[in-house]
Amino acid sequence: MSNNEIPYKIYLEESEMPKAWYNMRADMKNKPAPLLNPGTLQPMTVEELSVVFCEELAKQELDNDTKFIEIPDEIKSFYKMYRPSPLVRAYCLEEKLGTPAHIYYKFEGNNTSGSHKLNSAIAQAYYAKKQGLKGVTTETGAGQWGTALSMACSYLGLDCKVYMVKCSYEQKPFRREVMRTYGASVTPSPSDTTNVGRKLLAEHPGTTGSLGCAISEAVEVAVGTEGYRYVLGSVLNQVLLHQSVIGLETKAALDKYGIKADIIIGCAGGGSNLGGLIAPFMGEKLRGEADYRIIAVEPKSCPSFTRGTYAYDFCDTGMVCPLAKMYTLGSDFIPAPNHAGGLRYHGMSSTLSQLYADGYMEATSVEQTEVFKAAEYFARVEGILPAPESSHAIKVAIDEALKCKETGEAKNIVFGLTGTGYFDMYAYEAYNDGKMTDYIPTDDEIRKSLEKLPKV
Amino acid sequence: MSNNEIPYKIYLEESEMPKAWYNMRADMKNKPAPLLNPGTLQPMTVEELSVVFCEELAKQELDNDTKFIEIPDEIKSFYKMYRPSPLVRAYCLEEKLGTPAHIYYKFEGNNTSGSHKLNSAIAQAYYAKKQGLKGVTTETGAGQWGTALSMACSYLGLDCKVYMVKCSYEQKPFRREVMRTYGASVTPSPSDTTNVGRKLLAEHPGTTGSLGCAISEAVEVAVGTEGYRYVLGSVLNQVLLHQSVIGLETKAALDKYGIKADIIIGCAGGGSNLGGLIAPFMGEKLRGEADYRIIAVEPKSCPSFTRGTYAYDFCDTGMVCPLAKMYTLGSDFIPAPNHAGGLRYHGMSSTLSQLYADGYMEATSVEQTEVFKAAEYFARVEGILPAPESSHAIKVAIDEALKCKETGEAKNIVFGLTGTGYFDMYAYEAYNDGKMTDYIPTDDEIRKSLEKLPKV
Repeated sequence: MSNNEIPYKIYLEESEMPKAWYNMRADMKNKPAPLLNPGTLQPMTVEELSVVFCEELAKQELDNDTKFIEIPDEIKSFYKMYRPSPLVRAYCLEEKLGTPAHIYYKFEGNNTSGSHKLNSAIAQAYYAKKQGLKGVTTETGAGQWGTALSMACSYLGLDCKVYMVKCSYEQKPFRREVMRTYGASVTPSPSDTTNVGRKLLAEHPGTTGSLGCAISEAVEVAVGTEGYRYVLGSVLNQVLLHQSVIGLETKAALDKYGIKADIIIGCAGGGSNLGGLIAPFMGEKLRGEADYRIIAVEPKSCPSFTRGTYAYDFCDTGMVCPLAKMYTLGSDFIPAPNHAGGLRYHGMSSTLSQLYADGYMEATSVEQTEVFKAAEYFARVEGILPAPESSHAIKVAIDEALKCKETGEAKNIVFGLTGTGYFDMYAYEAYNDGKMTDYIPTDDEIRKSLEKLPKV
Repeated sequence: MSNNEIPYKIYLEESEMPKAWYNMRADMKNKPAPLLNPGTLQPMTVEELSVVFCEELAKQELDNDTKFIEIPDEIKSFYKMYRPSPLVRAYCLEEKLGTPAHIYYKFEGNNTSGSHKLNSAIAQAYYAKKQGLKGVTTETGAGQWGTALSMACSYLGLDCKVYMVKCSYEQKPFRREVMRTYGASVTPSPSDTTNVGRKLLAEHPGTTGSLGCAISEAVEVAVGTEGYRYVLGSVLNQVLLHQSVIGLETKAALDKYGIKADIIIGCAGGGSNLGGLIAPFMGEKLRGEADYRIIAVEPKSCPSFTRGTYAYDFCDTGMVCPLAKMYTLGSDFIPAPNHAGGLRYHGMSSTLSQLYADGYMEATSVEQTEVFKAAEYFARVEGILPAPESSHAIKVAIDEALKCKETGEAKNIVFGLTGTGYFDMYAYEAYNDGKMTDYIPTDDEIRKSLEKLPKV
């Protein structure tokens, strides 16, 4: 099909939207390593996981075999409120770069949560409601996940308790207010509402918190409160499953116009966006039906893929969660204070870690000043103010498009634009004022943080 | 066509998008009263207006005859970046209200400026560029217009100087940073960069500014700087012309599914959204081809339609602009400090004023606490966090839908959802904390403010 017939934005019809999530693990020869009980070091069972998670989600977490899991009607109805998201042909960006490459981005930011997180939030809230629970607990860092979950819970009439990393709670009061508008209770973490929080406050008075600690607090409250379970917005297998809707829509939109992707690029923190975006493409790759270059982009300040170790590690600071085998920087690792935006988790999804270890994808890391430079460039050219997280993918997509300019190749580059930056204006302000800095952890820092890996 | 076949979101194909703007004035028997030269009290000519505005825009401002004005290709290209905007069937809201009414909203918030303002910003920037200008100046209150203009100027490589009402500049630092990210210079108004500003600062030290003053400053700079003109985001005829794209898309989407609107509701400050949304419907009404109930919704704290006087008035505090005949509260009128969001201009579009005077539309006013109640309700049910401005229309749409519930009528209610509330979280916070208040100006206050009307 000729170039000119491809619209700026490809929207699927309702009838073309995915009816089932796709589970990459079913096509993996080497399955991701199982979650381990931190006490017994034995693989977690559905029963054990169900203390923390809803039962249906515990099943999804451990299901390495079912290839397609039908999306329940109630979730499909909710998806209709903000999906399909557009697959945008970046005509303006291509022209500005003078590249023969064709650039496409899947834009997940056009919903009030401002990111793709809503795709899994509604799924997790739905299964909690179906199980008859009263509410759920979670942690949030930059606030996108907490916002998404509060929207989903509000829609279904579930209570929502969010532990928000204290520095974000203070720096992002607007995110907090969006969550409150959706009826969630938001507590800065560490807090005195949990044992983990009180212990940490006693040991480190004045701490501004971390994701790992907020997770521990949320899990403690979920396990200790009747009718509550814990939910998590990234890293987990179940999250990648729900987020496969991103990739399935992307592939359907490309297929509709006969476009074959050459390179697929996603930012990677815990892996929720990347795992969702690449899912059906990776499926074809795993089954030997097609080949794609798949690139994970992470911050140089939190480089789990590119500088971490592939090993079993704790998922949280309080060590109350199961152990996961993943590329990790150690559960105590916290990015330097100048790190803006998300992508700050110390580990990476077990599924993606296994795929990376098996050579099915590449990973690269970028510094945040160059990320914000790409963000500003993109904002001006494409008219969308991107989230700092998404801008990691933008940076590498631009780099790849410029390589095509050198070689003259008209490659199809697809990247995930996970969200908008409206709540990240402090970071943009620092960039606008020339005050943004970079920090790359030293080998020593990472080695030290890895010393506490559990003995498995 | 049956109910079930209407999708949640109606997106037009690129081929179905409007190719020309529609000029309501061409179908009005009673044309809007002309702008007057404040010195001579004679109708402004294109030549006189061209000192302040670009020439092509000056022509559009005074053109009461041309029914359709073709949208230039460059503007259509820009529109493709964020248009068509979806016409959403509010299935969830209908269900929650239990109303037999069918509710539709045209959602203009899915672009980085966060509102419909971009539709006219790109048009005005385009004509400035075409005239070979270096840049434009403008004022902004809540910041939506300034953001939109900075995006349009950045796209076309024009300089953009924004005078931002001081209280907004301080309360909305994030809006300011979005403008700066798009390369605009943002000055708090009143400032010491203009005669008007210096005079006002001397007379009222510590003033937090007003739209009327910011307009005067922006006009002074435009007129006094080689290669610059002034642009305005509302009130003007040219703005309503560009914004007709909202209504044209809305009508095309409704027509596509054979839906006849019964009630059309828009919030009204200066009239940019309302005038755009209703344009083609009003056209049919003016030509006697169809009838619609058209409702303007304004804040009780700034009620130009419902409590103002229809008379010639100054458009700005400095009295440097042409006089316009409009429903006005007097050019010194400033809403009480507890007023949140936009819709704070003292006058109303001349075109809409004439239509209202001739009985073609209704107007109603609402208090801001009930507006935020509707906003929160809508956010939770429809998953979009609305701008305070847009929420005025939501409030009345809900009221009309509830009337249908009483009468059992399945009316088609269409309203304009002009934008998102991401940069209005201080106001949401006040509402969440139960600290939001209402203020209705007394008759005396309005009478006093109207004493300064020019003698025409």
